[in-house]
Amino acid sequence: MKRSFGARAVAYLLPVFVVGTYDHKGIPDAMVAAWGGIYSSDPPSIAISIRPSRYTYRNLMEKMAFTISIPSVKYIAEADFFGITSGMDTDKFAVTGLTPQLSEFVDAPFVAEFPVVLECRVTKHIKIGAHTQFIGEILDVKIDESMLDTDGKPDLARLQLIGFDVLRSEYYTTGSVAGKAFSAGRKFLSG
Amino acid sequence: MKRSFGARAVAYLLPVFVVGTYDHKGIPDAMVAAWGGIYSSDPPSIAISIRPSRYTYRNLMEKMAFTISIPSVKYIAEADFFGITSGMDTDKFAVTGLTPQLSEFVDAPFVAEFPVVLECRVTKHIKIGAHTQFIGEILDVKIDESMLDTDGKPDLARLQLIGFDVLRSEYYTTGSVAGKAFSAGRKFLSG
Repeated sequence: MKRSFGARAVAYLLPVFVVGTYDHKGIPDAMVAAWGGIYSSDPPSIAISIRPSRYTYRNLMEKMAFTISIPSVKYIAEADFFGITSGMDTDKFAVTGLTPQLSEFVDAPFVAEFPVVLECRVTKHIKIGAHTQFIGEILDVKIDESMLDTDGKPDLARLQLIGFDVLRSEYYTTGSVAGKAFSAGRKFLSG
Repeated sequence: MKRSFGARAVAYLLPVFVVGTYDHKGIPDAMVAAWGGIYSSDPPSIAISIRPSRYTYRNLMEKMAFTISIPSVKYIAEADFFGITSGMDTDKFAVTGLTPQLSEFVDAPFVAEFPVVLECRVTKHIKIGAHTQFIGEILDVKIDESMLDTDGKPDLARLQLIGFDVLRSEYYTTGSVAGKAFSAGRKFLSG
């Protein structure tokens, strides 16, 4: 038996995307977006939804560039702080002591200490309701070398990334590998 | 030191959304989308990106309605099967033995056995590159009562949902609670 929770913005799993931008003075800012996800494989694109009242919105419109830095559990407090304050009156990097590093491909800073980084240029923005969706072409993905396994791919257990539980307003860690994609379902294929 | 993975559709955490639709004959279909996420809080909306070649694309254009059923780890094989076959030539519900249940608010079926379900009506679709993004207004969220804690909210540890590791083509489970959102970062607020 299922219980109805009504018309609400709820889904699982939701990411913790730390969106990095520069403002008009070149001061680095970062905010947290759990509203977003991969948009397309070709060109590789990601979408994030931002309210027009956010400082990041203004920066995005001006620079048409952003990064997504993905925090590990170690940086929960810093990431959360990026979400509860505004670049309008707070230099979030200065307060947290994290390092804003200029991207290689776009005019936006990423969080040097976070293990996964995407560099994106805005290709489109679309307003629906309370949010504007910014679509960013992913120009590069960077991952800490110390997080890579011997096969050259990142090890989730080492990355220790976090997700966002919207109904509980909690962050959670990832668990263990549960199965192979494009493979686990083959048992239902008639031979 | 970070290693570059180039321009690729990579992010963490990515969801496993099982998208349910009816075709023109009323036959229920379901496919897997890892490209998607919450779009807006108001109206509550979710976005999923689908290639025009998919059977679901045709169904979405015809019915303008879909569900998202979110599988627990127990149904990895079934969910994966939904992703590696096409409704064009396979009745995926019949093969897996899962139950297509008509939604309460939209003309689309959900997977009765999966613990979390969203019922959505398409409000917009936008083509960029290889994918078309369908934006769905979430008309209802339903969660299995057996997954709710005494506070009436779902217990992630009980839900046992899965995420998608795109660089490894693997599914993984969620781990444990790591911190409170809108709270963990307060330690950086000057008193």
